[in-house]
Amino acid sequence: MTAFSFSISATDKKARRGRVSTAHGTFETPCFMATATAATVKAMTVESVRATGAELAICNTYHLMLRPTPERVAALGGLHKFMNWQGPILTDSGGYQVMSLSALRQMDEHGVVFQSHVDGSRHELTPERSMEIQYLLDSNITMCLDECTKNGATHEEAADSMRRSMRWAERCRKVFNRREGYGQFGIVQGSVYQDLREESVAALSAIDFDGYGIGGLAIGEGQEMMFNVLDVTLPSTIPARPRYMMGCGTPSDIVGSVQRGIDMFDCVMPTRSGRTAKAFVRRGSINIRNARHAADPRPVDETCTCPTCQNYSRAYLHHLFRCEEILGAMLLTHHNLHYYQNLMRELRGAIEAGTLDDYVAAFHENQAKGDIEAL
Amino acid sequence: MTAFSFSISATDKKARRGRVSTAHGTFETPCFMATATAATVKAMTVESVRATGAELAICNTYHLMLRPTPERVAALGGLHKFMNWQGPILTDSGGYQVMSLSALRQMDEHGVVFQSHVDGSRHELTPERSMEIQYLLDSNITMCLDECTKNGATHEEAADSMRRSMRWAERCRKVFNRREGYGQFGIVQGSVYQDLREESVAALSAIDFDGYGIGGLAIGEGQEMMFNVLDVTLPSTIPARPRYMMGCGTPSDIVGSVQRGIDMFDCVMPTRSGRTAKAFVRRGSINIRNARHAADPRPVDETCTCPTCQNYSRAYLHHLFRCEEILGAMLLTHHNLHYYQNLMRELRGAIEAGTLDDYVAAFHENQAKGDIEAL
Repeated sequence: MTAFSFSISATDKKARRGRVSTAHGTFETPCFMATATAATVKAMTVESVRATGAELAICNTYHLMLRPTPERVAALGGLHKFMNWQGPILTDSGGYQVMSLSALRQMDEHGVVFQSHVDGSRHELTPERSMEIQYLLDSNITMCLDECTKNGATHEEAADSMRRSMRWAERCRKVFNRREGYGQFGIVQGSVYQDLREESVAALSAIDFDGYGIGGLAIGEGQEMMFNVLDVTLPSTIPARPRYMMGCGTPSDIVGSVQRGIDMFDCVMPTRSGRTAKAFVRRGSINIRNARHAADPRPVDETCTCPTCQNYSRAYLHHLFRCEEILGAMLLTHHNLHYYQNLMRELRGAIEAGTLDDYVAAFHENQAKGDIEAL
Repeated sequence: MTAFSFSISATDKKARRGRVSTAHGTFETPCFMATATAATVKAMTVESVRATGAELAICNTYHLMLRPTPERVAALGGLHKFMNWQGPILTDSGGYQVMSLSALRQMDEHGVVFQSHVDGSRHELTPERSMEIQYLLDSNITMCLDECTKNGATHEEAADSMRRSMRWAERCRKVFNRREGYGQFGIVQGSVYQDLREESVAALSAIDFDGYGIGGLAIGEGQEMMFNVLDVTLPSTIPARPRYMMGCGTPSDIVGSVQRGIDMFDCVMPTRSGRTAKAFVRRGSINIRNARHAADPRPVDETCTCPTCQNYSRAYLHHLFRCEEILGAMLLTHHNLHYYQNLMRELRGAIEAGTLDDYVAAFHENQAKGDIEAL
């Protein structure tokens, strides 16, 4: 059994090129996770997900506690076997989704009671139960249960919220089942306030987690503020621990966050966009439903090596979305995940080569060009 | 360029084992086509469709004339390139779908005027236009425009309807663009009346088509009546021409029709069922949504070699359908198409071995068993 570990092989200013080892294999960083919320990457087979280069999948405690229940997943041999994903899996704690998806939430020091968004049934999520669920799922990286402090919170609100999350983090660490090849991350909160972010990092470092989730960002504060928070938060973290920017983000968000020292990302953007006709391309993004693509024989992105761009025209994809054919979502999701994984490959290569600033400049130059001219 | 041809390599009583050659390759018969109505097999990649063993795809004139239009498909290089299907393609004439899907239909000797089910726009379909559309699509097997006589028609209604279809068949043959590797099939009508079916076959044989579509069946007349019609219709066809049973059917329908001398089949059943949680198995069929599968670690069919049965439990598929995850439709459609293609492989093997009766007896014995016991 491999111990849970993180090794850094190269740096370029604040950016880090690393590798995380787990009981279910390794993943290269900076990485973008495959979002498999309900134990499936929407509209993708596992084989296609792998083909994009994804090595780490993220599943969700909230969704899986409601359906099919962690006890059932455990009885069926754990999440890896259940969803046929043999690589490492990270699970979110469920806290964010309880607050954003469920009804009639009541939170106190003990935990949160809520009604399922599926059938209205009543459930309780506590730090202890969240850890138990993630253990039953056989998650390789367990995230602490925290409260995602809302955007716009006052300093007092943010302090109260963050300190409760830190008390919960202690409870999470206490009940975490330590095993070879399995890790647990604390989550930094503190909204946009430097003193609170530093206090949160110090609390988590004292508890001695295997990595840091950076929470409470990419929730409407804007990219400039988000980057500012990273700038003041990351210097006080223990450098040898991986840093995971939760729920982020756009390609531009990722590029800037990697420059600031983030190692791990997850976001629904490439998969959700793949189902709503938005494609990420080197020169920005396009909506394949637009009439300008209806007769266009060119691929979504002529520089892209994904199967969608190798085999299909914009006109065909436009047709599939107009007819609401499932294959449209399948092909465009595959393209978008390939785009994100390719971005991560290029970022890793640039860090290794020590050319990250040049890469980022070229990235922004391309993005600013906008889509190719219509035929 | 290969000429369009049909060769029979073995027979077992009335059943035939053959091969059709086209400009885009060959397909073995008896065959089941991959249903790609709007230029996509719903919820399947082309690679997955191929992996099931499908060699011939069927697309639809009605759907493609509305979106994206045959002129656009032609401008983009034809249907094979458009949908990335390099094998042979058969196109239905659109007549059946005009009558079943569109609004405000008016049919006369000239053709049919109708409103699109998509946007209400007015369109006309005539024998000549249907042939032009199928030519623009670059279809390897063009079907004549006919009227699908409704189930329960009187002898007089069926005679009038069939004779108009035969006059249309003459018009279709007249304008068909004859090319190496491309064929055209007439469609036998005549409802359940032996004299009319024989008259229709004689009319089509005189026109000298490359094969026979058997139309107006599998529309509610019941399996016994359907088999009776085949028994009285097929003996008068030219034996060296392929026989295509249109829009049929259940596994049992196919087995009985192959015994009676049918060479080609198409049906939405395996794909549509794959999206509505019904799986075809050796012992009948199951609905994966049923609670009895919720915790079942076994595959859909333990005797099946498809990727779905090799890698996923009934419990996982149940979970995907409960959560309305697209992967559920993808995996179950793949299984169902594999089931149908495997059935065709076994039927072809049994004809070659001269053991079709034994095969069919074992088939029905297995089907009668019902699903495996719940755990």
